[in-house]
Amino acid sequence: YPANFGAQPPSANDPMWGYFTAIAGQDGEIDAEELQKCLTQSGFSGTYTPFSLETCRIMIAMLDRDFTGKMGFNEFKELFTALNGWKQNFMMFDQDRSGSVEPHEMSQAINAMGYRVSPQALNGIIKRYSKGGRIFFDDYVACSVKLRALTDNFRRRDTMQQGTVNFAYDDFILCTMAI
Amino acid sequence: YPANFGAQPPSANDPMWGYFTAIAGQDGEIDAEELQKCLTQSGFSGTYTPFSLETCRIMIAMLDRDFTGKMGFNEFKELFTALNGWKQNFMMFDQDRSGSVEPHEMSQAINAMGYRVSPQALNGIIKRYSKGGRIFFDDYVACSVKLRALTDNFRRRDTMQQGTVNFAYDDFILCTMAI
Repeated sequence: YPANFGAQPPSANDPMWGYFTAIAGQDGEIDAEELQKCLTQSGFSGTYTPFSLETCRIMIAMLDRDFTGKMGFNEFKELFTALNGWKQNFMMFDQDRSGSVEPHEMSQAINAMGYRVSPQALNGIIKRYSKGGRIFFDDYVACSVKLRALTDNFRRRDTMQQGTVNFAYDDFILCTMAI
Repeated sequence: YPANFGAQPPSANDPMWGYFTAIAGQDGEIDAEELQKCLTQSGFSGTYTPFSLETCRIMIAMLDRDFTGKMGFNEFKELFTALNGWKQNFMMFDQDRSGSVEPHEMSQAINAMGYRVSPQALNGIIKRYSKGGRIFFDDYVACSVKLRALTDNFRRRDTMQQGTVNFAYDDFILCTMAI
């Protein structure tokens, strides 16, 4: 038996564990296509359109610190917690359950998440994730995942917390291309 | 009359001009959804799957230096030239016209485009744009557009050409979130 002292066993009564293990198979990891299947089968999006492969790829990249393009159960749980928060946030704005929110509501949401971005950057972000002048659930989540992933990558390099980072070209590409 | 000396008039015998104007309408600019329509109607993708909205959004962002989320005819022509190059490149590798290429062919293509990225970054990029272990035309183009846009943004700030850039957080978000 492999030594397992002190390690947290994956919680067998966690309902997500069933979906995850059924899809992950032997290696215990899932890629973006499997993540999409997992989130669709668990019914996470409810009445909203299921997540696109593109959004699932960004979800994987957000937590993929070793660049394998895959996700284990611990990362999956971490993702799931974040997704629940974003979904609640989205539903708070989408009172009529239309599946989309207004640009100014997206601004409010980004501010509420604690990000401090200039009006110019905010404006660019909102234009990028809009469709016909509104922001749909899948794009809202893609935007939230991306903002968190980029901010995490930046913060990890901003060790003195000065709000600036000196990037070498290759590192810049490494932490932006996959997201 | 507005002064127009020296300015190049949009070439009326350019076949793309017809597709563009029909869709752009009065303001003479197109957003990502209109670009998608324009590229689909012109049959640019040929036997390949037409571009996704996601890829069209990155195309707009690549040339959208004023952050309007829109593209005029001059930018459209610039995009079109780049797209033709990428398409030729892709078809050179996709000899059997399957619509997808191998990971190592994607590596070769990125190197051939003149980008100097580490094996780790290259590996991350390829994982990100693969589907079932292969890279499809739409993803290949999305990756090429993104790599060019991020490199352009980096280079524009690397005024001394030292290969490093000092990014403030807001500027980092501004030049990565829309791409």
